[in-house]
Amino acid sequence: MPTIKNKKTIATTKLFKIEKLDINFSQSVDREYEIITGMGLGAVMILPILDNNLIFIKEYAAAIDDYSLTFPKGKIDNQEKILEAANRELQEEIGFKANKMINAYTLDLAPGYLSHQTHIVIASELESSELEGDEPEKLEIVKCPLNSIPAFLLQQKNIDSRVFAAIFIYLNFLKDE
Amino acid sequence: MPTIKNKKTIATTKLFKIEKLDINFSQSVDREYEIITGMGLGAVMILPILDNNLIFIKEYAAAIDDYSLTFPKGKIDNQEKILEAANRELQEEIGFKANKMINAYTLDLAPGYLSHQTHIVIASELESSELEGDEPEKLEIVKCPLNSIPAFLLQQKNIDSRVFAAIFIYLNFLKDE
Repeated sequence: MPTIKNKKTIATTKLFKIEKLDINFSQSVDREYEIITGMGLGAVMILPILDNNLIFIKEYAAAIDDYSLTFPKGKIDNQEKILEAANRELQEEIGFKANKMINAYTLDLAPGYLSHQTHIVIASELESSELEGDEPEKLEIVKCPLNSIPAFLLQQKNIDSRVFAAIFIYLNFLKDE
Repeated sequence: MPTIKNKKTIATTKLFKIEKLDINFSQSVDREYEIITGMGLGAVMILPILDNNLIFIKEYAAAIDDYSLTFPKGKIDNQEKILEAANRELQEEIGFKANKMINAYTLDLAPGYLSHQTHIVIASELESSELEGDEPEKLEIVKCPLNSIPAFLLQQKNIDSRVFAAIFIYLNFLKDE
């Protein structure tokens, strides 16, 4: 294993922290890395299933200044468990709560430079239930039949990369559920 | 569409830039966002196919201080086209060049706060060809038969989320290739 010889915070903002790492590899090779940390307890992304449909949202995504196609998601609050966060976000963003949830996978977004993890939760047995969230505008809800996911995604733009991962995990890792 | 009323750089490092955005939504709702930009021309991730196997690498990932399972990938250099970058990274990281490449998809990693894009390239018809890269250590190469991808991935840890996306895109978006 490489060794972190030194770690220094070089920028801090309200949401992010950038650290510079001095790392020693074997054969006296030393390298500098910059990584982004400071994103709290990570995020949940929920893949909701209702009547053989996946439920997506279209949400304004500031880094691309456009709407992105994504699943309900959000930060995990302090003191909150993963499935609690998932059920809260579902109620805030699409107006449903789930009576069945599976904490299916923990996703490393880009582990080379980003420490951020997203927990993928599969939610089903939904029933109407709304919570007031902190969304700056009402989210558009988009449904896709389970049997036509690739054709649906091919027609969409600005898809959050975690949507592909969540669907792969749902289709391939949970066959016995 | 929401309107970006003000944009200010609040941190700059060698690799990253953090910007604060003041955004106005309809109904006089204003919000502050922080986004991470400054990652140059983006990255390529190459899904290499050789003798009905996918070729992965295990690479040290600084943000998790552990090895991650990923595909050959790297930044696009100045003046470099996407497929040129892909073929260079292949030769540097796994010692092959590709005689067939498809620029299959442009992935938005987490468009809410990260402007970073990764171009997914499918590479086949490989032949041995090495280029000296800037890797701090020799990369471990791991192969997976095309007919047992989910079982293989279930046994791995620290998988780069883009691996799932790249495989989904390869399996579902390129049926006619």
